Amino acid sequence: MTTAFADPKSLSHEELEEGTVFAPRFDAHGLITVVTIEEGTKDVLMVAHMNAETLALTLDTGIAHYWSRSRKAIWKKGETSGELQEVVELRTDCDQDCLVMTVRQTGRGAACHTGRKSCFYRSVETENGIAWLEDTGLPRLFDPKDVYGR
Amino acid sequence: MTTAFADPKSLSHEELEEGTVFAPRFDAHGLITVVTIEEGTKDVLMVAHMNAETLALTLDTGIAHYWSRSRKAIWKKGETSGELQEVVELRTDCDQDCLVMTVRQTGRGAACHTGRKSCFYRSVETENGIAWLEDTGLPRLFDPKDVYGR
Repeated sequence: MTTAFADPKSLSHEELEEGTVFAPRFDAHGLITVVTIEEGTKDVLMVAHMNAETLALTLDTGIAHYWSRSRKAIWKKGETSGELQEVVELRTDCDQDCLVMTVRQTGRGAACHTGRKSCFYRSVETENGIAWLEDTGLPRLFDPKDVYGR
Repeated sequence: MTTAFADPKSLSHEELEEGTVFAPRFDAHGLITVVTIEEGTKDVLMVAHMNAETLALTLDTGIAHYWSRSRKAIWKKGETSGELQEVVELRTDCDQDCLVMTVRQTGRGAACHTGRKSCFYRSVETENGIAWLEDTGLPRLFDPKDVYGR
């Protein structure tokens, strides 16, 4: 059975923020932002988007499914790389326009297409109005060329 | 001196993902998504947006400044409530269209306007195609009526 969601327009402000009705507020493109964190370490692995269909797929299968904005297609995370994400917990925020999903990262433990555990492998440094990036040293757990052929 | 950012269009795909040039990819509205996490616990406190001006303000002052999409104005987090956020670390993701900011939450430790530490105080539960929310029990650290007068 496909999980359905309530229409946020049917809720009062109080119900939206304090109630028990799940009414995800998809944006003008039908998408909601999802922050995916790793069980245990709580490291932020990636930030991506879901539409109503892939949110339902995620809830119904327990495996993360996103919406690929670049490919305009359902994106079952890890379908190509084997790095599936098993859903441990899903939370919504006060105004229900964002989700935080805790997952068990399978495979080699790499959520990022670059082969690293997390997409957030560079820090922003600044000095005297100049900003640059520094590698935080996250190792590559796979070679993207081997996995994606490019 | 106001920190300036490189134009992502000036970078190759390889430079964008593996390089040291910080070239935040603001969206069509001039905004970038920011996931704010707490130093130490790594709890996700909130998800918000910055434009180039508030990202520079954040880097230059060390205090989180967002862009309020509802008020269409600079949003110095905690200006009303006293719950300022001191920036500890800022990271960008592989394609530089998202940021993770680690902060020291000051004041009573409440990042959410509801008075709770985090905006993510409800979990999504499902059974037989029905989804609902459950309160995870985050206490209110202030009464919004006292702080915002509503």
